[in-house]
Amino acid sequence: MSAIATNCSGETVRQCQLCEEAGGEVVWSNALARVVNVNDKDHPGFCRVILQRHVREMTDLPEHERVEFMRVVFAVELAQRTLLSPEKINLASLGNMVAHLHWHVIPRFASDPQFPNPVWVGKTGGAAQILPQDYWVRLREELIQSLGPAD
Amino acid sequence: MSAIATNCSGETVRQCQLCEEAGGEVVWSNALARVVNVNDKDHPGFCRVILQRHVREMTDLPEHERVEFMRVVFAVELAQRTLLSPEKINLASLGNMVAHLHWHVIPRFASDPQFPNPVWVGKTGGAAQILPQDYWVRLREELIQSLGPAD
Repeated sequence: MSAIATNCSGETVRQCQLCEEAGGEVVWSNALARVVNVNDKDHPGFCRVILQRHVREMTDLPEHERVEFMRVVFAVELAQRTLLSPEKINLASLGNMVAHLHWHVIPRFASDPQFPNPVWVGKTGGAAQILPQDYWVRLREELIQSLGPAD
Repeated sequence: MSAIATNCSGETVRQCQLCEEAGGEVVWSNALARVVNVNDKDHPGFCRVILQRHVREMTDLPEHERVEFMRVVFAVELAQRTLLSPEKINLASLGNMVAHLHWHVIPRFASDPQFPNPVWVGKTGGAAQILPQDYWVRLREELIQSLGPAD
């Protein structure tokens, strides 16, 4: 997917879902990145960490931003581990469909609908993990503690 | 998968595929990590970056090693982009089956067998990319240039 296209009036316009939309409910954000609740019913703790501007690959970012962006990803991983004690964390930056840098941060449970498969593969028969009622509030608090106040 | 088990003599033994085996042909390595050719016939440029010791999650690593490990991952990404100009790079650390830190670094092509699906999902009908004949030699040279000599 290209981020830039020309509309019927010959104007250059953006065509990227993650440039146009938040991509989920924003839990924490700063100038570089936002953390969103993607509201996945099979994996309810699933967050995405999305770069605020349109960049295609990690190695298109200057090195200091690459480190800073990963720092947000790892803060989300740590917060999920603290709050949910998952069997495993899955991290992935694919972008074949939407080539705007975004990381999937997915807490996996041995009893979840697809374990031990990746979440993109067919179901194995488990059930979605039930989150603590205050999960999203506490996740935000954990992120503020590790990364600083949200914008 | 646990890395530690007790054998029939009551001795503590490791049980982890990536502790026991290289996990592919080693292209570059240092004390922290090794880069291997996983010899995937559908995605022939596919590398894994494997931590040399048994650690389960990125946030189990001290922060400086986390940064250093990702620096190897991004060096592989950059080398693949330089040598292959793929449509997209896919990065993933899952570990549901083998919970020993390893990153999949996968150059994806619009014509590959599964694009735009993740590589773990059913085929869409394309063909494996043909690599330049000297790809693995040049990849190693690129990594030596960006990361330093291999051990």
